[in-house]
Amino acid sequence: MTNKVLNHYREQNLDRARLLIKCPDQPGIVSAVSTFLMNNGANIIESSQYSADPEGGNFFIRMEFSCPELHKRRNEIEQSFREIATTFKMDFEFCYVSDIKKTAIFVSKELHCLMELLWEWQNGDLMMDIGCIISNYEDSSHLAESLGIPFYYIPANKDIRKQVEEKQLTILKEHDIELIILARYMQILTPDFVSYYPNQIINIHHSFLPAFIGARPYERAYNRGVKLIGATSHYVTNDLDEGPIIEQGVERVNHRDQVEDMKRIGRNIERSVLARAVKWHLQDRVIVDGNKTIVF
Amino acid sequence: MTNKVLNHYREQNLDRARLLIKCPDQPGIVSAVSTFLMNNGANIIESSQYSADPEGGNFFIRMEFSCPELHKRRNEIEQSFREIATTFKMDFEFCYVSDIKKTAIFVSKELHCLMELLWEWQNGDLMMDIGCIISNYEDSSHLAESLGIPFYYIPANKDIRKQVEEKQLTILKEHDIELIILARYMQILTPDFVSYYPNQIINIHHSFLPAFIGARPYERAYNRGVKLIGATSHYVTNDLDEGPIIEQGVERVNHRDQVEDMKRIGRNIERSVLARAVKWHLQDRVIVDGNKTIVF
Amino acid sequence: MTNKVLNHYREQNLDRARLLIKCPDQPGIVSAVSTFLMNNGANIIESSQYSADPEGGNFFIRMEFSCPELHKRRNEIEQSFREIATTFKMDFEFCYVSDIKKTAIFVSKELHCLMELLWEWQNGDLMMDIGCIISNYEDSSHLAESLGIPFYYIPANKDIRKQVEEKQLTILKEHDIELIILARYMQILTPDFVSYYPNQIINIHHSFLPAFIGARPYERAYNRGVKLIGATSHYVTNDLDEGPIIEQGVERVNHRDQVEDMKRIGRNIERSVLARAVKWHLQDRVIVDGNKTIVF
Amino acid sequence: MTNKVLNHYREQNLDRARLLIKCPDQPGIVSAVSTFLMNNGANIIESSQYSADPEGGNFFIRMEFSCPELHKRRNEIEQSFREIATTFKMDFEFCYVSDIKKTAIFVSKELHCLMELLWEWQNGDLMMDIGCIISNYEDSSHLAESLGIPFYYIPANKDIRKQVEEKQLTILKEHDIELIILARYMQILTPDFVSYYPNQIINIHHSFLPAFIGARPYERAYNRGVKLIGATSHYVTNDLDEGPIIEQGVERVNHRDQVEDMKRIGRNIERSVLARAVKWHLQDRVIVDGNKTIVF
Repeated sequence: MTNKVLNHYREQNLDRARLLIKCPDQPGIVSAVSTFLMNNGANIIESSQYSADPEGGNFFIRMEFSCPELHKRRNEIEQSFREIATTFKMDFEFCYVSDIKKTAIFVSKELHCLMELLWEWQNGDLMMDIGCIISNYEDSSHLAESLGIPFYYIPANKDIRKQVEEKQLTILKEHDIELIILARYMQILTPDFVSYYPNQIINIHHSFLPAFIGARPYERAYNRGVKLIGATSHYVTNDLDEGPIIEQGVERVNHRDQVEDMKRIGRNIERSVLARAVKWHLQDRVIVDGNKTIVF
Repeated sequence: MTNKVLNHYREQNLDRARLLIKCPDQPGIVSAVSTFLMNNGANIIESSQYSADPEGGNFFIRMEFSCPELHKRRNEIEQSFREIATTFKMDFEFCYVSDIKKTAIFVSKELHCLMELLWEWQNGDLMMDIGCIISNYEDSSHLAESLGIPFYYIPANKDIRKQVEEKQLTILKEHDIELIILARYMQILTPDFVSYYPNQIINIHHSFLPAFIGARPYERAYNRGVKLIGATSHYVTNDLDEGPIIEQGVERVNHRDQVEDMKRIGRNIERSVLARAVKWHLQDRVIVDGNKTIVF
Repeated sequence: MTNKVLNHYREQNLDRARLLIKCPDQPGIVSAVSTFLMNNGANIIESSQYSADPEGGNFFIRMEFSCPELHKRRNEIEQSFREIATTFKMDFEFCYVSDIKKTAIFVSKELHCLMELLWEWQNGDLMMDIGCIISNYEDSSHLAESLGIPFYYIPANKDIRKQVEEKQLTILKEHDIELIILARYMQILTPDFVSYYPNQIINIHHSFLPAFIGARPYERAYNRGVKLIGATSHYVTNDLDEGPIIEQGVERVNHRDQVEDMKRIGRNIERSVLARAVKWHLQDRVIVDGNKTIVF
Repeated sequence: MTNKVLNHYREQNLDRARLLIKCPDQPGIVSAVSTFLMNNGANIIESSQYSADPEGGNFFIRMEFSCPELHKRRNEIEQSFREIATTFKMDFEFCYVSDIKKTAIFVSKELHCLMELLWEWQNGDLMMDIGCIISNYEDSSHLAESLGIPFYYIPANKDIRKQVEEKQLTILKEHDIELIILARYMQILTPDFVSYYPNQIINIHHSFLPAFIGARPYERAYNRGVKLIGATSHYVTNDLDEGPIIEQGVERVNHRDQVEDMKRIGRNIERSVLARAVKWHLQDRVIVDGNKTIVF
């Protein structure tokens, strides 16, 4: 059924793309890009832009457009855009809406984030093609199978990290994975692994970063006596819990909430924050700028 | 002191304007407008757009730009823009940031919204030139005087509505008022009065509209046993509490909250919701589209 | 697995109960009740009270306590409490935590609320014994079966309401249902049906009541141009959408959100609002007082 | 006018008090206390309790009650309560509602928190008797004078901390100050000073603690790229920003918000969070338990 939904979505969006640009700020960028799109018969449906610093910083723009026969003219359009790109020193990317992103979900024992992702995916709210679920526990195998998603059980611990990641990388390549979602996967990834997927690994950390970086954040939040707890979704870099933040959320707690209550409340924050971050990534709304994100 | 702040702001923004456009959607609008601005030496600082319905609806855009010597070239630029405007059948307006809007605040006995507006104004968060405060009570006269704002005490009731409004209109014209803020002004305005200021009168209603239209909303919220109360800021039209909504806010209440508690909690919602709506209007971010608003 | 969780919870809570009381306010109530509990060897774990009107209104109290050998001494304790109850003209109820409530979930085509309830139930966050799922569509049958929950498909429309409800009532009695959850069940219940389950039917309405009572609330919210949409969970009475409100929630929307977006955002509000209302009911935290609720 | 409000409040509440208790948890506490109050003719209006750990931790209770002729019977009641207090090893305090707390507000250059406190105070939302305003800048002197509040200008820097605090302590004693509110007072207090007012100094820190402890939190929040910013109100201890947290709040920010925007948004969070914390303290709702607070 989900394949039917994905295929229908693909067909509906054959003519639709998003153009993401980052370049030094200067007058004339919007004019050049919008004139280019018009000359190619495209209609701009949504456009957002941001000047990091109007006096000499970077300029970012995301334009979503539809263009008749786009799927046949991709190469031609991209080629002819290179001239403008060179003039304005642009980093740019055309993201085609019908190229639904292939994703892998990593999970450990706690399944609430996985379940939320699968639920929103079945519901058509997360347009992604889930290539596989990888876990160091077997708990989610039935769930994966019931939905027809390949499931790989790869036990893991810090002593066998290298072998584990080799297995994982093989699977990821096999499935052409473009985005890895760490849905409460409780193993640290090596710099080697991360280097293969720059800004393509989204993690959910169960605290309001930069508070409570590292392990056991709810226990530490409880001990500090905070009145709000949170969760943070970010791209994974080599610095633990220090990658560019995509989204954060919080909920109130009070003196009655023990560590277990905080974990229970936290599960709801985690799953909704992660789902929002993933959705925005899938819609090509997130641009990484140094250690920050621009979310259009 | 505030005049110094306003003058400083004017000087800092002599070259800055916002172009607001509404027109039938079609390809080429962004290209035409951005090329026009570029050709006039303008740099686009912020741009937001919205297609009500990509297939045949209206298109809206707000572009904030800076342009050297703008204050000397206003007429020239506006004149030369007419060609594009005609081509695309545009309603358009150039709003100059240095033309700080002249406002009048109407208030009755409850002063919390007035105080919030004055506080944010003194703080530089609301860039407006307060021409006068008009009230049917004398309670706020000292406050107005201490800030050097002309205060007019005009007693009002439904039997003398016509005379009252005539006096008010005279004062408003004298001060060249462009925006009237009803900061808990508890008198109904006549269609005649409203017709002089289309989409230029902002009201705060003390409920989450369309719930509890009309009088005594907190009493009715209490009687219904709601778990959230709210406030709504909207442009005034001839239908009571039915004008285009600009902003809304809510807070939780519980069974312990009596009507007086709801009013107290509500005051905080009202003042922040009204202040946000006014700020967005002053920044030319609100476009009225039928009975709705687009807030860029 | 869930049965194991429920049985474990039952055993852990054999000695635990909640005493709910409603009576005319007067001095000495807390003293009498707490002394009674102490004399019976009980330890008060949590206590909340509320005086509707300290001068002559009703008084409400919820005391959660643990008492050794409670499961063997229920009758004895309830009997001996009658004396106090008579003195203070109390309505009272002892709710035993180990008597996990038997519930039925009614659902139509939209499954998000059902899925949330099942998810929180599997997770141990909703302590209820789901006796059956009843639907006028077959969509959720697989889901129910996969969890071992009896599923009843009963097609319904307004012309066969009486027969439909007779079937439903037979099933509900068979399963000793104590709480009916309308998880987006899109059929109106007759006064007859409602009379069998006073304050035992919880509905989720997809608007911020009393705004948008009745059908198609998202369409109407869209047309009114509201900036927040909401959902309301309430007990069902014979007045459509007018029963005592248990919980409400809202989320921001903006001019870009079409009706479909509002429905998508609304689904998240609906499922979390309903789940909170059900959880509080299961924990005996909700006392109905006229057309309002006290949520302790 | 405000004195009139305070005097009216005093007279209305001559018979009203709050009893705060902390003691080792054991059965019979509520029974003993409520029976004591009943025997003294008191009516319990509100009661909240909390067991830190039902198996061997501390028990906390706050009972608000009214009692005829209370203002004449204080000594008698407190004396006769000592027996129960000894039996249950209680720390206890009777707080009389008519003893409106004498407070001092410390402020530096930023006046938004001061203004909010004064506004809510004038409005009758913060029932306190402001003895004085102390500042290391002269900016707020006019405001203080216009409200008839003694203002003390005491320039301060870290080299003259001892002399400054001596002057401050003299003033505080002269005014019988019971609560010091640091409304963005940007000087560090010495352990000596703090030792005179244990759990009687409330600070507002402009971050979501424990994130961004110390100086320049908005700059650091901006650099980290967080998506929510916050403020924290806490009692002052000798560890900078480490005292027991009373209340926290957050608001969303995005990539467009520069440091100045965060400060502006932050001002609204700071003033409302501080005002809530102060209100709860004035209502004797906050009990300090180690490095945490219980907020009843």
